[in-house]
Amino acid sequence: MSTLLKGAPVASAINEKMKETVAILREQSIVPTLAIVRVGERPDDLSYERGAMKRCASVGVEVRNVVFPEDVSKEEFYDGIDKLNKDDSVHGILVFRPVPKHLDNDRVRNAIVPEKDVDGCTDGSLAGVFTNTELGFTPCTAQAVMEVLSYYDIDCTGKEAAVIGRSLVVGRPLAMLLMHKNATVTVCHTRTKDVAKHTKEADILVVCSGQMESFGEEYVRPGQTVLDVGISWNEEKQKLCGDVKFDEVSPIVDAITPVPGGIGSVTTSVLVSHVVESAKRMADRS
Amino acid sequence: MSTLLKGAPVASAINEKMKETVAILREQSIVPTLAIVRVGERPDDLSYERGAMKRCASVGVEVRNVVFPEDVSKEEFYDGIDKLNKDDSVHGILVFRPVPKHLDNDRVRNAIVPEKDVDGCTDGSLAGVFTNTELGFTPCTAQAVMEVLSYYDIDCTGKEAAVIGRSLVVGRPLAMLLMHKNATVTVCHTRTKDVAKHTKEADILVVCSGQMESFGEEYVRPGQTVLDVGISWNEEKQKLCGDVKFDEVSPIVDAITPVPGGIGSVTTSVLVSHVVESAKRMADRS
Repeated sequence: MSTLLKGAPVASAINEKMKETVAILREQSIVPTLAIVRVGERPDDLSYERGAMKRCASVGVEVRNVVFPEDVSKEEFYDGIDKLNKDDSVHGILVFRPVPKHLDNDRVRNAIVPEKDVDGCTDGSLAGVFTNTELGFTPCTAQAVMEVLSYYDIDCTGKEAAVIGRSLVVGRPLAMLLMHKNATVTVCHTRTKDVAKHTKEADILVVCSGQMESFGEEYVRPGQTVLDVGISWNEEKQKLCGDVKFDEVSPIVDAITPVPGGIGSVTTSVLVSHVVESAKRMADRS
Repeated sequence: MSTLLKGAPVASAINEKMKETVAILREQSIVPTLAIVRVGERPDDLSYERGAMKRCASVGVEVRNVVFPEDVSKEEFYDGIDKLNKDDSVHGILVFRPVPKHLDNDRVRNAIVPEKDVDGCTDGSLAGVFTNTELGFTPCTAQAVMEVLSYYDIDCTGKEAAVIGRSLVVGRPLAMLLMHKNATVTVCHTRTKDVAKHTKEADILVVCSGQMESFGEEYVRPGQTVLDVGISWNEEKQKLCGDVKFDEVSPIVDAITPVPGGIGSVTTSVLVSHVVESAKRMADRS
């Protein structure tokens, strides 16, 4: 049976470190603050919002909730974001996407200044991932994977890594992050001819295809570390499932993240740590 | 013997297409213009400048030469770039780098607005490569590789590609470009344990390690396409050489770019095509 790479202790470690930094900042009268911008009352958004608020409260980060009605005008919405961009007491801005179509999802992605883009969605943040510089912030889920590897002392240098999925939010940034940590990275996707060949050769497998329970025993071998980024509601089983067929894969590989309780449970801590980091960077600049 | 993928016909095809676009733009009284910014009189810069000016002249693109003395002040230099950023009659800006240390090479990379960054060096351009959107321009050498593949009808979809080298200017952007074209890409670098295993598995090999004549027969097999990005002066042989040991590799593989006369001879055409494209984009916006 493989080692279970649980997210909870990873999140706890991030939280403890955050608390220390928040205490130092508060001594300087700086209160790290996250603005959460929501349009309408979508259940997913509300659920994520509750989780983020709870995490913020537990580490001493303030939250400012900015809620717009679904029929908010473009002007009012973007004026609202612009005010948050310019407000020195706000250190991070999270906008729930997709926004209603009339607000333009392409425009909203880059409406936030990279300095406050704690979600890592702007071109500035993505350029930072690509160039390996502190420009904006790393997309939270991608960073959560790296935090799990780091917490469990899984060194990437000289390792073979396969990333299954090439999305802008997870697959592509992860390929860069793993490469910056000296892994030899192969990105597999829907047009890859022989996925199993690549995945069997890898030491570290990150599955972020977004295809529920699609990754079975035929893709793995003993000795591997598997990180499952997927999280979907399985109607049939009436439970949350990852992209990996956990029951098939976990007996074979060396280590694996569970779903739920794996990568997903680290993501919110990463988001909040970005707010604290942003407050610290702003303090260092002034 | 392998097919020689020469750069000259690729450059010619790009130039012919450019001429057509320039003619249409000039009919609208738009003269595509490239500003070349040089600090001092470095022989490499002068040589590249001559090549770029010749190529521009041949397709009807104007060049504005902006030359600063080596001891130019920071203020004067950045004011000069800012003026070019704001000048509507300038469509592309190329700054020779590295600039003298007192001018700050990190700052100069992002001093140009992405819209005029025909060299593809700004964070905006790199974010465009990462997100696969028309933000700024693709780094010229990386795009030159893609132009050679496209000209010689080498389809990337479903192919295995290995990129040897992870530089910000060539390796990383190329990995993204090949992936956008549906190749399954592995990036090898100095920390990769078994480079030969990866390169032998690949259908398309892009060698951009910057290590002159370091890539020999042990890395290749019949059936492959090899693109050699390297270009260095070999003191011993008194000639230009690539990163690939051409004499060893070319009898084995299916197709290979020569050095000189391969990728390098396409780069200037790509740069100038970006100036024309920038002028077209500006006209479309107005």
